[in-house]
Amino acid sequence: VFGRIVGSAATAEPAENGNALSSASAARERSLTMETLNPNVKAVEYAVRGPIVLKAVEIEKGLQQGMKRPFEEVIKANIGDAHAMGQQPITFLRQVVALCTCPELLESPAFPEDAKIRARRILQGCGGKSLGSYSDSQGVDCIRKDIAAYLERRDQGVPANWEDIYLTTGASDGIMSILKLLVSGQGLSRTGVMIPIPQYPLYSAAISELEAVQVNYYLDEEHCWALDVNELRRAYWEAKRYCNPKVLCIINPGNPTGQVQSRKCIEDVLHFAYEEKLFVMSDEVYQDNVYSPDCQFHSFKKVLYEMGPEYFDSVELTSFHSTSKGYTGECGFRGGYMEVINMAAEVKAQLVKLLSVRLCPPVSGQAAMDVVVNPPQQGEPSYPQFLKEKMLVLSALAEKAKMTEEILNKVPGIKCNPVQGAMYAFPRIFIPPQAIEEAKALGMPPDMLYCLRLLEETGICIVPGSGFGQKEGTYHFRMTILPPTEKLKVLLEKLSAFHIKFLEEYAALQEPSR
Amino acid sequence: VFGRIVGSAATAEPAENGNALSSASAARERSLTMETLNPNVKAVEYAVRGPIVLKAVEIEKGLQQGMKRPFEEVIKANIGDAHAMGQQPITFLRQVVALCTCPELLESPAFPEDAKIRARRILQGCGGKSLGSYSDSQGVDCIRKDIAAYLERRDQGVPANWEDIYLTTGASDGIMSILKLLVSGQGLSRTGVMIPIPQYPLYSAAISELEAVQVNYYLDEEHCWALDVNELRRAYWEAKRYCNPKVLCIINPGNPTGQVQSRKCIEDVLHFAYEEKLFVMSDEVYQDNVYSPDCQFHSFKKVLYEMGPEYFDSVELTSFHSTSKGYTGECGFRGGYMEVINMAAEVKAQLVKLLSVRLCPPVSGQAAMDVVVNPPQQGEPSYPQFLKEKMLVLSALAEKAKMTEEILNKVPGIKCNPVQGAMYAFPRIFIPPQAIEEAKALGMPPDMLYCLRLLEETGICIVPGSGFGQKEGTYHFRMTILPPTEKLKVLLEKLSAFHIKFLEEYAALQEPSR
Repeated sequence: VFGRIVGSAATAEPAENGNALSSASAARERSLTMETLNPNVKAVEYAVRGPIVLKAVEIEKGLQQGMKRPFEEVIKANIGDAHAMGQQPITFLRQVVALCTCPELLESPAFPEDAKIRARRILQGCGGKSLGSYSDSQGVDCIRKDIAAYLERRDQGVPANWEDIYLTTGASDGIMSILKLLVSGQGLSRTGVMIPIPQYPLYSAAISELEAVQVNYYLDEEHCWALDVNELRRAYWEAKRYCNPKVLCIINPGNPTGQVQSRKCIEDVLHFAYEEKLFVMSDEVYQDNVYSPDCQFHSFKKVLYEMGPEYFDSVELTSFHSTSKGYTGECGFRGGYMEVINMAAEVKAQLVKLLSVRLCPPVSGQAAMDVVVNPPQQGEPSYPQFLKEKMLVLSALAEKAKMTEEILNKVPGIKCNPVQGAMYAFPRIFIPPQAIEEAKALGMPPDMLYCLRLLEETGICIVPGSGFGQKEGTYHFRMTILPPTEKLKVLLEKLSAFHIKFLEEYAALQEPSR
Repeated sequence: VFGRIVGSAATAEPAENGNALSSASAARERSLTMETLNPNVKAVEYAVRGPIVLKAVEIEKGLQQGMKRPFEEVIKANIGDAHAMGQQPITFLRQVVALCTCPELLESPAFPEDAKIRARRILQGCGGKSLGSYSDSQGVDCIRKDIAAYLERRDQGVPANWEDIYLTTGASDGIMSILKLLVSGQGLSRTGVMIPIPQYPLYSAAISELEAVQVNYYLDEEHCWALDVNELRRAYWEAKRYCNPKVLCIINPGNPTGQVQSRKCIEDVLHFAYEEKLFVMSDEVYQDNVYSPDCQFHSFKKVLYEMGPEYFDSVELTSFHSTSKGYTGECGFRGGYMEVINMAAEVKAQLVKLLSVRLCPPVSGQAAMDVVVNPPQQGEPSYPQFLKEKMLVLSALAEKAKMTEEILNKVPGIKCNPVQGAMYAFPRIFIPPQAIEEAKALGMPPDMLYCLRLLEETGICIVPGSGFGQKEGTYHFRMTILPPTEKLKVLLEKLSAFHIKFLEEYAALQEPSR
C-alpha cells in the first residue's frame, strides 16, 4: 500500500511544484503570488545570503555529484561563520551547554568543576531546572545578572542594571525588535533610520520590512572608514526634508568595513545624538575582534558615561552583542543580548510584551551567552586551556587580518584599508569600463559580475560591495578572513591572479583592433 | 576606583530609570515614547504572558522575600510549559543534543549507540561538523529529510518533499514568517486572516503587528468546539465587505479549546478553502497530544491528499509543528518546522530570502526536532526506555485531561467540554452580574477580574478567556493540565472552592438587604 500511494502521487508531481505561477499552464490561480506578496518582503535584500551564495551552493552540489570545474571546492568567504571555516569551539563553552542539556553529566568526572558550577547555576535559573522550559521573555534572570556584571567589568565600573538586559535570538533578532518599536508616522513624519554606508544588510533589510525610511551616511574610505560627524550632520539635515530621522545605527567594529572607531569619534557621535535626540543603536558584536595594536574597543555606553550625567541619563542607547562572533564564533546557538538604557518604563513594558509573543530566546543560546560573558577566571581549573584556545583564535585572526590587507594591496587595482577589527576585508576594486558596460547589459551591478566570474573560475564565494552599499561609481567586495591561514593565503593568491586576468581581459576588449 | 564610580553613578540612578516619560519632571523629551511608539506594536496583545502573569511573577518574588500570603506558592497554569511543571525530558533527545554539543562524548561508553548514530549524522550535516555553524536558512538538509520521512510515515505514504520543509525557531516563528508573506493591499483589498475564536493569541498578535485584518470565525462550544463550515462561510462573506480574506488559520488539536477535529470537518474546511482560494495555515503542534479514545489526529495534508489531485495539487497549505509540545515538551530549545505545499517557486525564493535575514533557526533546536521526528525504533538499544518515558508522559496527560474535565464539571457555574487533545481546559464560567459590573467599573473584562481574584486568593495563575476571544457575554478561562497529577488535583479543588465562594459572595451582594 505504501508503495502504491507514493507511486500514484509521483505521477502528479510535475504539476505540483514545477509550475511557476506565471506559467500559462497553471491550472488555477494561487492566493499567494508574486503579485499579491507583501511588497515590503519583496523589497528586502540580503546580499550575505543572496544570489551569489545560491549560485555557490548550486556549484557545490554539482561538484559533489562529480561535475567538472576548474577547482576542487567552493570556499565560502561570504559569511562570518567561523566554525564552518574550521575554527574549533571553545571547549569550556560546549562543556557548560552539554552539562545543562544532560544534567546526569554533572556526576561525570570527565567534566571540570568550574563548568559544573556554571551549569548548575544556569539550571537553577530555569523553570523545573530544565533547559527545555521557556525562560522569561527577557531571558533567564541569573544570565542577565552575569551579563550586567560583565558589562561593569568591561567598562571599568560604569554601572549596569541587569533589568536593562534582554537576551535575544542572536543580535539580529534584538536589532529587529528595537527597530520595530521605533517605526511610526506617515509621509514626512515617517521614522528615518540612519545607517552607515557600507552597512551590514540586516539593517537595510529590516528597514524595508518595516517600511521605515533608510537614511545613508557615508563612512570615509580615504580615512580608514572613519565616521565623520559632519557627514552624519549632512545626512541628518538632508533627511529632515523627507522623513523624521530619529534612529542612528552604528556598527563598531565595522561590518563590512573592519574599522575600529576612535574614542573621539564616538564622543562626537554621541554628542550629535544628544543634540538631535536620536535613539542610538550600537551594534558591538565584534567588540572582542580588535587586531590593530593602535586600536582599542570603546563601548558607546562607557563613552556616554564619561561624558557626564547630562548625557548618560538622557541619550537613548541600545547596544547589541552575540555569541556568534568574538573568539567563540557560536553562530548556530543564536545567542545574543541587548542592553537598553534610558528607555521609558512604559515603553519597556511594550518591548517585553512584543518579545513575549515569541515566548523566549533559545535557552541553550542563553547558556552559551552566559559563558561568553562569564568565562573561566584565573585560578579556576579550566582557565589555562580556555586562555590557550582563546589566544589561538584571536592571534590567528590578527595574523590573517594583516595578511589579507598585505596581499590584497599588492594587486594593481585593489586597495584595501587595514582590517583593524571584525572579520572582514572590504577592499575597493577597479573594474574596467568594458566590464561595467557588460554588467549593465546583463542588468547586474558591476561588482556582482566580478564576484560571479570569480566564483565560476575559482570557486571562491565573496559578496559584492553593492550588497552593502558604496559611494556611486566605486566598487568593492566583502570577504571574511576566517579560512585557516594556509587556505586563506591560497584564496588570496587565486583572487589576485583572477583580478589581474580580469583586468587584462577587459583591457584587451578595449583595444581598437577588436 | 571601581567602587567609587559605581557609587557616584548610583546617586544619579533615580533620574535614570525611575521617571515615566509622562512625568513632568523628565528633564528632556525622549525620541521613543508611548506617543511615538509603533502603533502596531501598541496594538499587540498576548494574554498568555499578559498582566495576570506579570502579577503572578510579582507575587512569586514577594513570597520568596518572605511576604505573607494565604498560599505557599504560585502555580503557573497559564502556559504550556511542561518541564517547568516537572515533566522530565526524554532522555534520548537530550543525549543526542549533548553529543552534538560535545562531540568528545561520542567516545563515551555512557551514551547509547543509537543516540551516537543520530548525533554523527546531524553533525555531518553541519558546517565544519559543528553545532556552532549557521545552517542554511531553511535548516540542516538531513534534518529536513528526516522530517519528510516522518511525514510520509505519519500520513501513511502521502508523499513529502524535503525541499518543502523549513526549520523554524519554534512554530511561532514559522507562523509569523508565513503571515508576513501574505499581508498586502490597502483598504478593501487588505489581507484578511481568518482565525478561530477562541484562538491562540499569537495569531491576533501577529495580525496586529503586521496590520492585517482579523476575521473571526467562532468554534461551536455547544458541540465540543467543533468547526462548522457554515460559520466559516458566514465569517468569510461578511469579511468580504471590508477586506480581502485570503488566509485561513486552523488550530488542531485546538488551543485553547482542546478539541480534535473530525476527518469530515477537515474535509469540509479544505473544500471551502479550495472553493474560495484560501491559503491554509494549519497549526498542528499538538498532533501527538490526543487523549480521547474516540478521537484521532488527521493531518490537513493527508486529508487533502485523499480528496484527490485536483485538491492536493492546488490548495496552498502550510502546516506547523514544534519540539515544545507532544511528549517532549522541549519549549526552551525553540525547535520547529513547517511544511509548505503548493507555494509558487518564486514565492518560495522570497520566503528563503526573508528567512535568511535572520540567518538560521537555532541549530540545537533543529537537532532536538530531528529526534522528535526520528525517535528510537523497535530493535534499537534506547527503544525500551524511550517508549516507557513517552507512554508515561502521554498516559499522565490523558489521565489529567479526564480528571480536569470531571472535577470542573462538578462545580455549579462551570461547564467544561471534554479535553480531547492539546494541553488545556477552556471551561465556561458563570460570572454573577454584580461581578461583571464591578469589573466594568475597574475597566477590565469580567474574567480578568475573576482570574486576578483567583490568583490573589489561591496563587493559581490562569488566563482569562477574553485573552483568547469568546462569544460576547460568555466567560471562560484557560488552564493547562500540566501540573503533576496530585498537584493538579489540589489546584482543581482550590479552584472549585474559589468559584463557589466567588458566586456566593456576589450573590450576597445582590440581596436587597445590602
